[in-house]
Amino acid sequence: MGTVNEDLRRERDKCTFDITELTTLFDGGKDKMLERKEREELMVSKREFEQGVCEDLLSHKGKYEECMRKSIITFGHIRQMQREGKIKITDYKDVLDCLLGSGNTRDGSPLALHYMMFMPAILSLATTEQQEYWLSKAWDCKIIGSYAQTELGHGTFIRGLETIATYDATTKEFVLHSPTITSYKWWPGGIGHTANYSIVVAQLYTKGECHGIHWFMVQVRDEETHETLPGIKLGDIGPKMGLQPVNNGFLGFEHVRIPRSHMLMKHAQVLEDGTYVKSSNQKLLYAAMVFVRVLILSDMVNHLSKAVTIATRYSAVRRQTPVIKGGPELQILDYATHQHKLFINIASTYAIRIVANKQWEIYYKVNDEVANGNCTRLAELHALACCLKAVGTSDAASGVERMRRACGGQGYLQSSYLPQLGAFTAAACTYEGDNTVLLLQTARFLVKTWQQIDSSSLTPTVSYMKPASAARYLDRWENSVEGIIHGLQVVAVKKIAGCVTVMEKRVQSGMALEDAWNMTSVQLEAAAEAHCRVILVTFFFEGISEWLAKASPPLRHVLQLLLELYAVYWALEKMVDLMKYTCISGDDAEALQSRYEQLLSSLRPHAVPLVDALGIRDELLQSTLGAYDGQVYERLMQEALKSPLNEDRVNQTFHKYLKPFMKGKL
Amino acid sequence: MGTVNEDLRRERDKCTFDITELTTLFDGGKDKMLERKEREELMVSKREFEQGVCEDLLSHKGKYEECMRKSIITFGHIRQMQREGKIKITDYKDVLDCLLGSGNTRDGSPLALHYMMFMPAILSLATTEQQEYWLSKAWDCKIIGSYAQTELGHGTFIRGLETIATYDATTKEFVLHSPTITSYKWWPGGIGHTANYSIVVAQLYTKGECHGIHWFMVQVRDEETHETLPGIKLGDIGPKMGLQPVNNGFLGFEHVRIPRSHMLMKHAQVLEDGTYVKSSNQKLLYAAMVFVRVLILSDMVNHLSKAVTIATRYSAVRRQTPVIKGGPELQILDYATHQHKLFINIASTYAIRIVANKQWEIYYKVNDEVANGNCTRLAELHALACCLKAVGTSDAASGVERMRRACGGQGYLQSSYLPQLGAFTAAACTYEGDNTVLLLQTARFLVKTWQQIDSSSLTPTVSYMKPASAARYLDRWENSVEGIIHGLQVVAVKKIAGCVTVMEKRVQSGMALEDAWNMTSVQLEAAAEAHCRVILVTFFFEGISEWLAKASPPLRHVLQLLLELYAVYWALEKMVDLMKYTCISGDDAEALQSRYEQLLSSLRPHAVPLVDALGIRDELLQSTLGAYDGQVYERLMQEALKSPLNEDRVNQTFHKYLKPFMKGKL
Repeated sequence: MGTVNEDLRRERDKCTFDITELTTLFDGGKDKMLERKEREELMVSKREFEQGVCEDLLSHKGKYEECMRKSIITFGHIRQMQREGKIKITDYKDVLDCLLGSGNTRDGSPLALHYMMFMPAILSLATTEQQEYWLSKAWDCKIIGSYAQTELGHGTFIRGLETIATYDATTKEFVLHSPTITSYKWWPGGIGHTANYSIVVAQLYTKGECHGIHWFMVQVRDEETHETLPGIKLGDIGPKMGLQPVNNGFLGFEHVRIPRSHMLMKHAQVLEDGTYVKSSNQKLLYAAMVFVRVLILSDMVNHLSKAVTIATRYSAVRRQTPVIKGGPELQILDYATHQHKLFINIASTYAIRIVANKQWEIYYKVNDEVANGNCTRLAELHALACCLKAVGTSDAASGVERMRRACGGQGYLQSSYLPQLGAFTAAACTYEGDNTVLLLQTARFLVKTWQQIDSSSLTPTVSYMKPASAARYLDRWENSVEGIIHGLQVVAVKKIAGCVTVMEKRVQSGMALEDAWNMTSVQLEAAAEAHCRVILVTFFFEGISEWLAKASPPLRHVLQLLLELYAVYWALEKMVDLMKYTCISGDDAEALQSRYEQLLSSLRPHAVPLVDALGIRDELLQSTLGAYDGQVYERLMQEALKSPLNEDRVNQTFHKYLKPFMKGKL
Repeated sequence: MGTVNEDLRRERDKCTFDITELTTLFDGGKDKMLERKEREELMVSKREFEQGVCEDLLSHKGKYEECMRKSIITFGHIRQMQREGKIKITDYKDVLDCLLGSGNTRDGSPLALHYMMFMPAILSLATTEQQEYWLSKAWDCKIIGSYAQTELGHGTFIRGLETIATYDATTKEFVLHSPTITSYKWWPGGIGHTANYSIVVAQLYTKGECHGIHWFMVQVRDEETHETLPGIKLGDIGPKMGLQPVNNGFLGFEHVRIPRSHMLMKHAQVLEDGTYVKSSNQKLLYAAMVFVRVLILSDMVNHLSKAVTIATRYSAVRRQTPVIKGGPELQILDYATHQHKLFINIASTYAIRIVANKQWEIYYKVNDEVANGNCTRLAELHALACCLKAVGTSDAASGVERMRRACGGQGYLQSSYLPQLGAFTAAACTYEGDNTVLLLQTARFLVKTWQQIDSSSLTPTVSYMKPASAARYLDRWENSVEGIIHGLQVVAVKKIAGCVTVMEKRVQSGMALEDAWNMTSVQLEAAAEAHCRVILVTFFFEGISEWLAKASPPLRHVLQLLLELYAVYWALEKMVDLMKYTCISGDDAEALQSRYEQLLSSLRPHAVPLVDALGIRDELLQSTLGAYDGQVYERLMQEALKSPLNEDRVNQTFHKYLKPFMKGKL
């Protein structure tokens, strides 16, 4: 392609700030940026990668097989970097974040879960001895693991899982069994044909008593032949909306025996004689689930970054309709309705990056505290990870879909890569906890916090609740970012308090507490989202403030616009709540709408530079619409011509079906 | 499968109304219902249909080929019904509505456009003589046609199309030419490998002058050999988010000559000597586009019907989490948050059915008037079809996605059929007019109407604007369906008036009118949506009232709940506007929220019967989760086992890639 599209070039020529300066902030410092670039260069440099047919054109089986070929190249690189000490086992989240998240495969990988769940689960659930044994094998990819929790009949309610692990003290083994069709494990990535081991979640029975769910290491295939082991039933669960080659599978057991040492016993143990030793803190068992939820928010940054890069660049290239009859056609990017779709998602990308970083900080801090026996912030971390996973994935999914539609028909083409990004983010709304269920878990924490607000000290992320409920917050309004944050805080507190009142009324009128909770749950979900909006805007505000301290003046100006746009957008979206619970006036609201429209105009010149600064290489972006040079029409045609359907001038179905039909013979 | 799931059976046992009575209303009378069932029976009865592999598992090319096999069976039936006089050329929209919309293929058909655009375009753009010639061939499928309008570089702004048709008076031919890569036709269904004719939209040049876009019949492939004709470049544009086998293609011309008689000349003509005779009314040229938009709304009913049927039945079968610790797990359908997702979409399905019917009535009425030379309602019809297409497809798309997510992970499986429904409705938001662009067209009409409100008489669908802007509407609020309709009317008028004021201010401050329009367009789009909400709730209200007059008391009760739920839901969604523009109080708003929660409870027992009444056969529903008997887990496993990936115990990639990798050799 070579030459850059004229419109795109002009956008960049007008750029007012140093793009690398922003990329450095986004990546978390110069070292991290260089590290990322070095890794990406290594990944992309392998030419063999480009052989073969584009996965999009293949069958369900073909997609898996082509993806295996590519995944092995990718993971070979990762292992190489591990061996060279460039990736350490204690901090490989950067790899998960970048290399796997923006990986080289087009539609996910059957090996991803090995890194994203199998190893983290070993780290959080296995004893030191077990870790030494399993982690060294897993880390070096001598074995490939999956994580089997969800069953055909149970996903959300994990206490209801049906798979059974019964301890047999005579042989010192556990017997794993799937008593019903609904007890089959269903969805684990890579379990169909890739993994030879899996961590399996099952109800532990010993001495005739059930002790609830526990975690077991189970070998499912022979290490040499890859044949399934006796009593193991597994396979692929078939085509999906996206993530086709991930090889999500089913897994059932017919009285499969594993050694006692294969139960992961960091927290609870079964002794040789079958005696059950309870975990000191049940909550610690769910640590791996919290890790993945924290990870998911980072992953959303990757997807949203790509979507806004694609949509923004294409909008600079695409011209449609003159504003003045007979005049030149406008760049789509100049339409306010289009800016309305794009810019909030550019802002969201930066916001979620910053919020995800802050969540990692909290995650590591709390983990350290827990390691030292201090569990005071565990419930808070859980509530935070729940709502940020829910709102983060849901914002990303709707954002990506909005970007896809903003690209018109071309966004519907797989060569644009937007459908795949849509399918990734849509999946994230469901996996690792359905978003509604997660928000209700946060709501439960918030209700409890509210009910004890006068008697207990508040942990940091809910500390706003006390001042925000005080009267002095309610009788003033200010159209500024801080003013909006105050307003959103008041809204969150009032909504939680309102739910408590409604539930109390319902209980007083004779309803059971559980039913009152259920009937109020639409409002409870909304209250948890309101709390999460406070977190998002506040963390973004704090994070941008830190960036501002480091940034040069031209960049500072753009960052301020971005933050303000984000805050004003959410104020307008939540205006009904602000009107209900704060003293915002009709004039304030109109001024915000008008300010919003001005912000769109002000951000317009910075749109392309802002997505360029996300620093996504064309090879990882994989999009006909989003490449740096903006040669979209040439690429669209080039990709179309690769379709095997275009190899035959006349398709065989003409002779078999179409011609006889047109001639009236069929 | 045979036996019906116990939970589903219980839901049906408790049904309080006559399901067939409701189906009859939904279908538009007993005759129509029987006709539909007869057609469906015929379609489904062909056993050969069930041969072959499920399309979901095939490659891009394989999907096309398998779909051609099935499509020919389907269209063979349709032709048979035509020949038996069961389908007439003048009213085949029922076929489009039912047979093609809920067709036998799983992911659309390359022959659909032949019915949906090719023939309607001939009907509205060809002279009687041309119709006689082309329509008889097309109707009998002796030729298969496509409709080529959109180009690589132009979709929205059709006046900007680049394809050229130059009249050569010496040979009495038009010369079609694609001067640039962006002028290639891009997206027409069936053009890749299926159609041998296409209507092509091109800029007409005669006697050195351009007369704007016109329509031409172009043969693209040989009728006997199916080889592309000289100068024709075409092919498939590659994999998409959905509608894979539709064979959307590209089409370019290198000085292709067609006879003068191949220009469709009902409205404008080119005489033998090249003289251009202008159309008496330019607007008539776009009649085919209005037809398709009206049709799309009906199509949304099919998709949404299926989605709510699948999600509701699965929610009755699926149990998750006991409300009381240790108690039985609840049917998902009993959770208020779940009812919140489902019931509005059940109501929407009924609403859009009724609104679509009313729109067809208006469409035929206006068309009759136009045939008699009366064009007074043409602009109104256009504005109505624009906003109903935009809001209808957008509601359907978000509804289907909500239903998909409501099915948890299983909704992500293609065997659930929800991803396909999502892809259909998502496409509809873009094709035949991007929704934002369409809403802005409606906004233009509304602004014009508002500016002339005192001087001109208002056509029916905007007649509410005058009374709604009168003061007496503003100082009362009533929490009833009529009250909500009044409120929404006030909102729409105030929003339109507000936009006009903002634009006037901007113009007064020195902005060009076009820029003021652009800068206000976010608000203009919202105003057009507000108008469309009035139409939707009003038409639904009127239509249900007609049904109520015919319905028996038990059914009447349920229909009233459905209507009220729809109205209250939208009042709550638009509460910020109601608070801004009407005198609704905080107490009113709270009462509505509380009423909404009661309505969810009240509708709960009727959920399954309400979707059963949509009357969708299992063979057309094609969903593992939605079948009438509710045997979801058995079906999910059955479908999974069909994956060719499961035919090999060990996939070949183990030996080629995975084993060498695990052994450290790759």
